[in-house]
Order: sequence, then structure tokens, then C-alpha cells
Amino acid sequence: MMEIAEQYKKVAQPTIRRLPSYLGILHSLRKQGIEVVSGTVIAEKMLCAPIQIRKDLAVTGIIGRPRIGFDVNDTIEAIETFLGWNNSNDAFLIGAGSLGTALLGYGGFFNHNLNIIAAFDSDKVKIGKVIHGKKVLGIEKLSNLASRMHVHMAILTVPSSVAQTITDMLISCNVQGIWNFTAVKLVVPDTVVVQNEDLSSGLAVLCTRLRQNGKAKKGENVK
Amino acid sequence: MMEIAEQYKKVAQPTIRRLPSYLGILHSLRKQGIEVVSGTVIAEKMLCAPIQIRKDLAVTGIIGRPRIGFDVNDTIEAIETFLGWNNSNDAFLIGAGSLGTALLGYGGFFNHNLNIIAAFDSDKVKIGKVIHGKKVLGIEKLSNLASRMHVHMAILTVPSSVAQTITDMLISCNVQGIWNFTAVKLVVPDTVVVQNEDLSSGLAVLCTRLRQNGKAKKGENVK
Repeated sequence: MMEIAEQYKKVAQPTIRRLPSYLGILHSLRKQGIEVVSGTVIAEKMLCAPIQIRKDLAVTGIIGRPRIGFDVNDTIEAIETFLGWNNSNDAFLIGAGSLGTALLGYGGFFNHNLNIIAAFDSDKVKIGKVIHGKKVLGIEKLSNLASRMHVHMAILTVPSSVAQTITDMLISCNVQGIWNFTAVKLVVPDTVVVQNEDLSSGLAVLCTRLRQNGKAKKGENVK
Repeated sequence: MMEIAEQYKKVAQPTIRRLPSYLGILHSLRKQGIEVVSGTVIAEKMLCAPIQIRKDLAVTGIIGRPRIGFDVNDTIEAIETFLGWNNSNDAFLIGAGSLGTALLGYGGFFNHNLNIIAAFDSDKVKIGKVIHGKKVLGIEKLSNLASRMHVHMAILTVPSSVAQTITDMLISCNVQGIWNFTAVKLVVPDTVVVQNEDLSSGLAVLCTRLRQNGKAKKGENVK
């Protein structure tokens, strides 16, 4: 027997980040009526070596059968169990601005595993509105509702200027996990998990690499 | 004199990913009327050591003055120039589904530096519609428009099943950079830059770490 916490600690973050891609591939195979798939076929779709597929899937407890492959249904279930995606994860969304509204409207990448219960905002114009089926509540109701509904996950899409203040409020509401879409480095206790999702960073990398490519082709120089 | 391409090659990706955060802090200081800021103050906001601030900003050519600090305006300009964000980056968005619509509607994180010219889709119901001020065009018009308008960047928000087909089409249209929001590992030539932005990966990491925390607290075991 091994403690789950210990088992998880051993799993490298790149492996965890790849698991949703496996899920996508497996769901698509299942739709096509395919019940068993070889590691080699998955590897081709993932653009990586078959050995990595076996190593990655092994963290979920799944081991392929030699010369047969992976059972599609079993593997889907194992990954979803590992990620906790077979249970619904209730979450509050804080900040019903453009990005918050976008996330409320985008059910696609959540695949049943993330359930945004309500949105909160401090803007009186937004409070009371229903955005993509979710009601926008005043931020002053957050504390009461979070403890009453046992919601431990929050999606943070507020302006940078209030990101830390709202985070402090979330922590006092016993929120355990924050999906942080702001560019602010949040200060949180060790017990709280923050996943940063700053899209500007991705855009910065893309723009810089594009500029690099372009300049290299033109042979331009800089002083 | 040093080739720009060479200068860029030396810049580590974590540094590039932090540059938008510096921009956010500096823009906020400028709004407050602050003209000069010390590395220590920026370091406190970034939750990192002052030496890292100096190293990061040095890649843009900016060096703080001892005992004085960084000129806010000069530093903003240097970062924006480095990222190419003082010029508008024209882009096409491919796939006007939920996420595509969300990104079209979210001007916030683009900060003047990304200009989505048009959206493309293959769904006849969507073609011709105007979403957040951008017209949705039929995918068959992509090739002609991309070459005529010299658009070299594309945002990919199509279903996984067609991601590679659309990517091949983009490459034949001379698109140089793809901001990939699908979970598919795209096959592209070396000259094309792909920045992967799979939000499911971030959610997977958050959920796994939350489960790890929760189980550790409860002292649960696994066989």
C-alpha cells in the first residue's frame, strides 16, 4: 500500500499535462468504435516514442497487454479517475469581465469535469445578470456561499489590481485551488494550490519566436 | 553588431514568459503617475529576487541606473519593442466555436498587440455572422486572403479532428506562427512556430494537485 499523496508526488508535471491529450485521443477512438489500441498508434498521434506512452499511462495504473495494446474504455476510466475528472469539480468564477464571460461560455474544454456554479463580480452593472446560464452574484456573497456549498476551487479572472485582495478573500473562504488567469504572482499559503494560466505569456513566446524567425530570414542586424 | 536572431536565441523561454507580467506592473505604475521604479519594488511584485529583474530586463536592452532604478516609460517601450508588441500583429482565427468566440470577444489580454482580422469556419450556420465585430468567413477563402493580406499568424480553435488538416492548409498559405488552442500535437516544418495553449493541461495539473492535497489531509490510502 502506498499513500495517494506519495504516488502523486512521483508523477512529473509534463506527464500530467499530457493526460488530457491522451483522453482526447481515446475518446475519439471510442467514438469510432475502436475498443483496443496499441501504444504505437497512440505514440504516432502524440508525436512521441511508444515508451513514453507506456510510462505516462502507467501512472494511472494502466498497463497495456503485450501484442494487444490498451483497452480504450479502461484507459479512459483510469485517466479520468487519476485526474478526478469522473467526479464533477465544483468551482466559482471570480470576475465576470471579458475573459470570465468567455470561460463561462466555453463548455468545450471542461468535458464534464468542471462545474462552474456561479460567477462573482463587484460591478453593480454585472451583478444579477445571467451569463451563459450562470448568475453573477455580488462579491460580498462569496464567503457565505463558499462555505455553505463546500466549493474549494476558484477561477480567477479579475483585473490584476485586485487579484491579491480577492485571493486573500478566497483563502479565508477555505478555497484550496485557484486557476489564476491574471498576470499577478499570487501570495498563498503552502496548502493552497495555484495554477497560473497567463495567456499573455504564450502570446509573448509566439511573437518573440516569430520575430526571431522573420529577422533571421531577412538577415537584419541590430546594433 | 549582433544578429537579432542570435540575440533572441540566447533568451530563455521563462524570461520571455515573464515579460508580459513586467509590462502589466509597469503600465499600472505609469497609471499611478510613477516615472521611476527600483528593481526591488518590481521584485516584490513579481515575488522573485531583484537580480532576476535586472537579468530579465537586460534582454530588452534596459539597464537600471544604480540607486535610481528603471525609467517606467523607457522600460515599457523596450519590452514592447522586444516582443514586437508596439507593432500590431495581424492574425486570423480559425474555428468560430465556443473557444474561438470567447477569444474574439476577449480583447483584454491582447493589449493592442494582436489584431484578429477575421475568423474562419466551415460551418455554414456560422459563415457570414459577425462575432464581436469580426466577420466569420468560409474556410475556403483562407488561402486567398492570407496571401493577399500578408497575414502570417493564426489562432487555431478548431475541433481536434480537423486540427492537422487546417494546419496543413495554413502552412500552404505561408502562415509562420500558430497559436494552438487544440490538444493536438501539430506536425509542422521547422520554419513554422507553434505555441501550444491547451487549457485542459492546466486544469489537469490543478485537479491532480488538489486531489493530492485533499487525500494527504484525509490520510487516505490506495492499494
